[in-house]
Amino acid sequence: MTFICSARWTTTPDARDRVLDALMSLAAASRQEPGNLAYVVHVSDEDPGVLQIFENYVDEAAFDAHVASEHFQRWAVREAIPLLVTRERAFSRSVDAV
Amino acid sequence: MTFICSARWTTTPDARDRVLDALMSLAAASRQEPGNLAYVVHVSDEDPGVLQIFENYVDEAAFDAHVASEHFQRWAVREAIPLLVTRERAFSRSVDAV
Repeated sequence: MTFICSARWTTTPDARDRVLDALMSLAAASRQEPGNLAYVVHVSDEDPGVLQIFENYVDEAAFDAHVASEHFQRWAVREAIPLLVTRERAFSRSVDAV
Repeated sequence: MTFICSARWTTTPDARDRVLDALMSLAAASRQEPGNLAYVVHVSDEDPGVLQIFENYVDEAAFDAHVASEHFQRWAVREAIPLLVTRERAFSRSVDAV
């Protein structure tokens, strides 16, 4: 059973590129974490203003390590999140691991 | 850029096990498709009645092939979907491939 975080970020048009840049750096570093199985940033055609993130971790402890990591602190907490309009996160567990 | 389908299925408590069984068979077969990158069935603690599916394909054509496959017809169209109460699907594209 893996641990999943599905996030939805919205930002202003002006801040979007800067948030996306930070998110690309965060995604690349997060995928190197030993407990990370997937980190997919995706956008729907209907809702281009909403940045969606699907994150899959081997367990909840691996997710906690992600949140405590320097790259999360740098790219999410200090860079991207202050630029967001809204930020939602939903947690779930896989029924059938990848 | 990959093609993502995020699905949300709800079912009655009585039909849940049968839908999950069909979904496990569908997931296993789908992951063998050449164009599939991920097929993750997940459930949130807050909403145990909602079966969520995160599917990632190399492109939209690979998703179309998935929908046309015998295993989708068998396990989704003929087995699971008739048992569902609601079925939602949202499509998006990765900004930064896995």
